[in-house]
Amino acid sequence: MDERGHSYASAGVDIDAAQRSLRNVTDAVKATYNARTLGGIGGFGAMFSGEFPELTKPVLVSSIDGVGTKTKVAQMAGDYSNLGRDIVNHCVNDILCQGAKPLFFLDYFGCSHLDSEAFESVVIGAAEACAAVDCVLIGGETAEMPGVYTDGEIDIVGTIVGVVDAEQKLPRGIQKPGDRIIGLASNGLHTNGYSLARKVLFDHAGLSVRDPLPGTEDLTIADALLAPHTCYFNAVYPLIQQFPGISAVAHITGGGLTDNLPRVLQYEVQAKIIKRSWTPLPIFEAIQTLGKVDDADMYRTFNMGIGMVIVVDADEAGSVLNALSESGVYAAEIGKLSTGSRDVQIV
Amino acid sequence: MDERGHSYASAGVDIDAAQRSLRNVTDAVKATYNARTLGGIGGFGAMFSGEFPELTKPVLVSSIDGVGTKTKVAQMAGDYSNLGRDIVNHCVNDILCQGAKPLFFLDYFGCSHLDSEAFESVVIGAAEACAAVDCVLIGGETAEMPGVYTDGEIDIVGTIVGVVDAEQKLPRGIQKPGDRIIGLASNGLHTNGYSLARKVLFDHAGLSVRDPLPGTEDLTIADALLAPHTCYFNAVYPLIQQFPGISAVAHITGGGLTDNLPRVLQYEVQAKIIKRSWTPLPIFEAIQTLGKVDDADMYRTFNMGIGMVIVVDADEAGSVLNALSESGVYAAEIGKLSTGSRDVQIV
Repeated sequence: MDERGHSYASAGVDIDAAQRSLRNVTDAVKATYNARTLGGIGGFGAMFSGEFPELTKPVLVSSIDGVGTKTKVAQMAGDYSNLGRDIVNHCVNDILCQGAKPLFFLDYFGCSHLDSEAFESVVIGAAEACAAVDCVLIGGETAEMPGVYTDGEIDIVGTIVGVVDAEQKLPRGIQKPGDRIIGLASNGLHTNGYSLARKVLFDHAGLSVRDPLPGTEDLTIADALLAPHTCYFNAVYPLIQQFPGISAVAHITGGGLTDNLPRVLQYEVQAKIIKRSWTPLPIFEAIQTLGKVDDADMYRTFNMGIGMVIVVDADEAGSVLNALSESGVYAAEIGKLSTGSRDVQIV
Repeated sequence: MDERGHSYASAGVDIDAAQRSLRNVTDAVKATYNARTLGGIGGFGAMFSGEFPELTKPVLVSSIDGVGTKTKVAQMAGDYSNLGRDIVNHCVNDILCQGAKPLFFLDYFGCSHLDSEAFESVVIGAAEACAAVDCVLIGGETAEMPGVYTDGEIDIVGTIVGVVDAEQKLPRGIQKPGDRIIGLASNGLHTNGYSLARKVLFDHAGLSVRDPLPGTEDLTIADALLAPHTCYFNAVYPLIQQFPGISAVAHITGGGLTDNLPRVLQYEVQAKIIKRSWTPLPIFEAIQTLGKVDDADMYRTFNMGIGMVIVVDADEAGSVLNALSESGVYAAEIGKLSTGSRDVQIV
């Protein structure tokens, strides 16, 4: 891994501890390497083959993102094990919206003081999530910034670079009234809406991470809030190759269906989403009820149980739903396109 | 207890303000676009041509980094104008050590609450620094994380992706006793050592950012500490093509000459650095004197006035120095290689 940051002893930072932690994650990181990875850990820049003889016109697709204040919930629960998966899967889903497959990923771990256990847990989780989609965890940086970060807090950022052949890139084709909107189930908030969720659940309702989630039998608030961001790549990428009627894929992140769906719509269509097509997870019902949050704010803040949306020609919608079901992804038709002006109506 | 409903804005996250700020930086960001940039702002992933017909074996070189607690000094001085340049130039210099030229850059701006002026200042600076080296500012992310960041504090992270032809990549060739070590002047701390600098200057010596820098006439502490990270690309990249005797380039970041120079050395050589070859900048003298920091700590924490090092065959050293001088970069021979075991001796 290139350039895990150095700090200096006088800032109260233990360089040796940081280097020990780096050694502890080396095996997991190296397990993500593939034949395209050139050079090892320790260079100023990380190297990856830029040859794509199998593609006609390779396009590099990149995205940078963070996991938001999900880190605060992890800290409250003392469980950082999913944050690495969260950031990798978030980034993988983002570039999947362009039809891209991941090539390599770089992580950033910012903190007030390095908690070795949290750091190692995050990086090992990131490495495992990378390995699951043949993405190389090629670089990273750690920064200890006492005073910038509140004591004990961390921020986690990641950048992904992937590739797609120009003729395969999404969105593509012509969208038209009658095209189906397929929603793929999320398993929770993924990595968006945590500031509002924390405010309602902890500040307003006075719950703790260890309390049971209202409306459930066996789940705690921590279980519900820390479920790892679902990765849709392995289920959706093959469908993009197989079904030319798929015109668009949208990752439902900050801004919810309201703000994310228009990003992949053409100017002359409207996405009409029927809320009763699916049942939002209990965590969303708890937040809405306890916080008296109105529907518009809920659908503009949270994914509401839909982590990814596929827009597909009506003729192929059934086959796409069947294929998703065979991949073990819960999906349903949640709406249709009609004539409009690149807007979303949620009814 | 607040009986009104909660919304994302009342939880400390103002999506509309963020979108307003984004619009204000759009022109500067778009000015970095070139013919390789595909698609505009707003997609889930940013797209860049991955075709390199002019290269035999293209290698993608990437790096992720932050500007550290330089952000705290910027906040004290109310001047964020150089932080965008800092992170871009840091990343550009990093991949230059592999011989790579920049392709595209992604920025991350984390904060407690979005200060529009600071954000816009950082992104516009980043865009200008990108444009100066024909690098596309292709993506970015802003995160408001009240509670994770101390009130008013920010963190700035960037990822760069560049390309080098496999046969041109650094380090290269055989390093041997007698090879010259050329040091390129820095203009200050660049982006490393700020926790120690702040501790010594502000906590220990009781100075403020507006105080004059000891040993200077016209500089304030803020001037000295906020000078933007020097970008060496335009001066050094052509030399790498021109002089095959250049075996290595090292970016002197956290860890100083002590830790960064060995990263580009071969196993059987030692770099012997002669301190009296150059005069450290007044800011380093002030920190060392006021903080009674010993030499070993200074050279392992700060760049000490040398921001980049070139290792070159003795026969070409004079020509490289001349060329640097013509580019307006102050440079000097600061040492030689001798027989050793990939170590650095600073005498």
